[in-house]
Amino acid sequence: MGNSTACLLISCPDKQGLVAKIANFIYSNGGNIIHADQHTDFENGLFLTRIEWLLDDFNLPQDLIAPAFNSIAQPLEAKWELHFSDSIPRLAIWVSKQDHCLLDLLWRYRAKEFIAEIPLIISNHPNLKEVAEQFNIDFHHIPITKDTKAEQEKKQLEILADYKIDLVVLAKYMQILSNEFVTQFPRIINIHHSFLPAFVGANPYHKAYERGVKIIGATSHYVTADLDAGPIIEQDVVRVSHRDAVEDLIRKGKDLERIVLARAVRLHLKNRVLVYGNRTVVFE
Amino acid sequence: MGNSTACLLISCPDKQGLVAKIANFIYSNGGNIIHADQHTDFENGLFLTRIEWLLDDFNLPQDLIAPAFNSIAQPLEAKWELHFSDSIPRLAIWVSKQDHCLLDLLWRYRAKEFIAEIPLIISNHPNLKEVAEQFNIDFHHIPITKDTKAEQEKKQLEILADYKIDLVVLAKYMQILSNEFVTQFPRIINIHHSFLPAFVGANPYHKAYERGVKIIGATSHYVTADLDAGPIIEQDVVRVSHRDAVEDLIRKGKDLERIVLARAVRLHLKNRVLVYGNRTVVFE
Amino acid sequence: MGNSTACLLISCPDKQGLVAKIANFIYSNGGNIIHADQHTDFENGLFLTRIEWLLDDFNLPQDLIAPAFNSIAQPLEAKWELHFSDSIPRLAIWVSKQDHCLLDLLWRYRAKEFIAEIPLIISNHPNLKEVAEQFNIDFHHIPITKDTKAEQEKKQLEILADYKIDLVVLAKYMQILSNEFVTQFPRIINIHHSFLPAFVGANPYHKAYERGVKIIGATSHYVTADLDAGPIIEQDVVRVSHRDAVEDLIRKGKDLERIVLARAVRLHLKNRVLVYGNRTVVFE
Amino acid sequence: MGNSTACLLISCPDKQGLVAKIANFIYSNGGNIIHADQHTDFENGLFLTRIEWLLDDFNLPQDLIAPAFNSIAQPLEAKWELHFSDSIPRLAIWVSKQDHCLLDLLWRYRAKEFIAEIPLIISNHPNLKEVAEQFNIDFHHIPITKDTKAEQEKKQLEILADYKIDLVVLAKYMQILSNEFVTQFPRIINIHHSFLPAFVGANPYHKAYERGVKIIGATSHYVTADLDAGPIIEQDVVRVSHRDAVEDLIRKGKDLERIVLARAVRLHLKNRVLVYGNRTVVFE
Repeated sequence: MGNSTACLLISCPDKQGLVAKIANFIYSNGGNIIHADQHTDFENGLFLTRIEWLLDDFNLPQDLIAPAFNSIAQPLEAKWELHFSDSIPRLAIWVSKQDHCLLDLLWRYRAKEFIAEIPLIISNHPNLKEVAEQFNIDFHHIPITKDTKAEQEKKQLEILADYKIDLVVLAKYMQILSNEFVTQFPRIINIHHSFLPAFVGANPYHKAYERGVKIIGATSHYVTADLDAGPIIEQDVVRVSHRDAVEDLIRKGKDLERIVLARAVRLHLKNRVLVYGNRTVVFE
Repeated sequence: MGNSTACLLISCPDKQGLVAKIANFIYSNGGNIIHADQHTDFENGLFLTRIEWLLDDFNLPQDLIAPAFNSIAQPLEAKWELHFSDSIPRLAIWVSKQDHCLLDLLWRYRAKEFIAEIPLIISNHPNLKEVAEQFNIDFHHIPITKDTKAEQEKKQLEILADYKIDLVVLAKYMQILSNEFVTQFPRIINIHHSFLPAFVGANPYHKAYERGVKIIGATSHYVTADLDAGPIIEQDVVRVSHRDAVEDLIRKGKDLERIVLARAVRLHLKNRVLVYGNRTVVFE
Repeated sequence: MGNSTACLLISCPDKQGLVAKIANFIYSNGGNIIHADQHTDFENGLFLTRIEWLLDDFNLPQDLIAPAFNSIAQPLEAKWELHFSDSIPRLAIWVSKQDHCLLDLLWRYRAKEFIAEIPLIISNHPNLKEVAEQFNIDFHHIPITKDTKAEQEKKQLEILADYKIDLVVLAKYMQILSNEFVTQFPRIINIHHSFLPAFVGANPYHKAYERGVKIIGATSHYVTADLDAGPIIEQDVVRVSHRDAVEDLIRKGKDLERIVLARAVRLHLKNRVLVYGNRTVVFE
Repeated sequence: MGNSTACLLISCPDKQGLVAKIANFIYSNGGNIIHADQHTDFENGLFLTRIEWLLDDFNLPQDLIAPAFNSIAQPLEAKWELHFSDSIPRLAIWVSKQDHCLLDLLWRYRAKEFIAEIPLIISNHPNLKEVAEQFNIDFHHIPITKDTKAEQEKKQLEILADYKIDLVVLAKYMQILSNEFVTQFPRIINIHHSFLPAFVGANPYHKAYERGVKIIGATSHYVTADLDAGPIIEQDVVRVSHRDAVEDLIRKGKDLERIVLARAVRLHLKNRVLVYGNRTVVFE
């Protein structure tokens, strides 16, 4: 099984003995923990943890780990996810016309910064078809109009199912997804080109210029029904000055967007992000 | 006159020959320019400049410089300010109960980071009287209630006049000034404890915590009638994580507030900030 | 016992079952873990952890915890430290003539950012005696010359013993401590006014200016016999430009020094720093 | 001539009337200044300026500007460069095996972030030939060994001459250029993968890891005969922690390298960098 690992992300009401119980489950089955981190949210009385262990000498076969752990988790009222490092997640990247985030993700993919498969690119414009071909990735052009949106989203969901996609990355996909879509496929990461919650919605760089800010930012977050309001995974900023016209903000912002989105995708793929309420714990 | 300098901050419609005209005015009168910086806002067709020169061998006496320059400025439809380095600005610091910004400003004042006099501290609470005494600065306790606000602001304006105050620094003065006050005394710098325009208004750290941001900020700006919407002078940020409870945001934020406010005050005192519209040019 | 906690910092050769063993020790004695974080240094085969638990319902009295844990630690070849939150560490701040770091530490002390007692300030110059008096802290002026150094260090060690000092903070103490001193009193935090390892030794801002760097930094580290080479706790940086003369670098650097030193002291006092080799794990 | 501009970068001993003289030269010939910035280095008694103006209604033809300005510059003992925006500089990118900086530069080139031609890529390894082909850029593979270095550098110089190259960008070219080469072709920008002057020379990330730093950096500088000691154009940094192994520093560093090199190249191409001594003025 090589260096395969299993990883649990757990949240439950805080009480005595949680660390011991979880660690014992792993130890008693012969697992060697290589990463354990916990966070207690005292205000909400919540215990949140990430624990990863080597499967080399683990006594339980992979398909029995979840049921075995469930018998521990249930009395704790725990929500939990179990991930295996040898089960490679499948990503779809969604784009419109801009290529900077897409290219950046694909370079990192090729450079093995992401442990993932990327079999699919979806776009509402045909512009980036050539990039997809260059990286040997299937490209689906699905134009969206107000009238066709519902229908096209149905088609998009079918394609995601066909390709067995685990995560959608909106890499400057300049369309708002319907609540129905998000409900049916809730594993979506977006990059917003502002330091949220400043400049929600369209044209954040123009708004930032108008407001005369001295710093701009970018925010990567999970997508929820509420526009630009989902749980934040990562943010970063860069200084600007009166010298910077709107097009300079856009140019500087592109560098931010690329890096912030890439970091968020990487953290997600390494199972380092635990969402609770509208917040994230990022176990770095 | 030692190393006294004069400094012009000018904004006017852009046209040919502006730099030459202004530089010639100074050169022909025997001035040696030690700082000249300009910015052209192409979108608005505006020329903005800061120019500072040594008065040592300048032919014009100080009181004739303004009238002489006016004859150049008028045909250019220029707005301008003239400052002399040997005319020391007088500051009033306004506080409520928190001392971190006040102490920081006073330490820098004593360390000669600011070229200014600080003869006056005004507060709506008596708590920081002792700090004022320690630094030998007059302290006026002017409590504010909804009912007394108008009357008390009148009193504040009188005190500012009595002390010949040039600039008010709101160093965590947790009261909103009325439009009338700001109209009558428009030279006010505030520190807002968020990365504006995110989290306008009260309790920004609580709002930041609720939103789950990964970076918090502070913003120093000139005060206008529109709350938290005046021209921004300086902003800075610091990373936070899920480990940080609201009180950690507040603690980290205090360090930001101190430094951002101090930078803004210093830039203003060095005549490096030119306001136009709701924006600033900061000639650093 | 209120909300008292115990905290273990442990490093030992990595092996299976460590988390479980340590967690069981705490759980079986009735402790509720409120913070647990671990790091595995795979290159060195080391397991490093910080674990903190409430003493409220803990079965072992404080003085029996160390011997009890020792019977677990010994077979694991673990190095460990045990700290209690109700045992308040005693700090001595050492200064020369500059007051910015001293004042900053004292303000935070008064603002309860540090859980510590600060009964003692030592200086090789008399300049800051007044600050000490203002904060009701004993001030010992111990001048140092080449000839008197050995003798004076002996005196310093006696004073540290008299005051039962746990940690010395060098807040711009511009003297090099002898190896003998550091060996006898190894719990010392220093602030170095550069981004180590750039600009080791004297006059780093002058060197930074000469080199024409675009960013300057400050570094807080534990003091070892090797000058400026001890384990780094915290670093931070700020941008500079050609506009900044040496005195500007010094001014900007002071703000960095204050904040970086304060962060390092706070992390140490919260038992968040584990030193191994010449490195630190900072459990944030 | 459209929106063509001319740009002067000037350094000379500081004296009265410099701004006026230079501005008058431009104004009297009908030029409209769109950017003027100056810096006075008081320590060295130097005046440094960048001035850019529209050529639309300028009376002097391009080939007469330099001789005309020379008659002003000579009495001032000025060093100066004159650049025209419609004369597009030609770049050669030199690489070894790593592609991240190369790809980043080429993406920005295609996105029109650089106003430049890139007709040539030179490498001591064949690995990145395919990338060159993809972007339709000539690729010359020039392997270097200790014995062939002198001979191969001669060949490199010939190729640079053939392609009329104005600027060489070392985008992770892991070879040291000889003094002879640098003397004959002095317009070279390098990216060094550390926060210089920390970690000069080989393997900076390994050294940074060994030292246990909490922040890593990257530095872009002009190449001089003295290794890693040339004038710095741009630096930036990113936080690291004990969680980051050497390969994480390398990964995080790559993002820095890309961005810092791109910024430096852009600043150079926009004639915003003025070198004097071993320092740069960056007119941003």
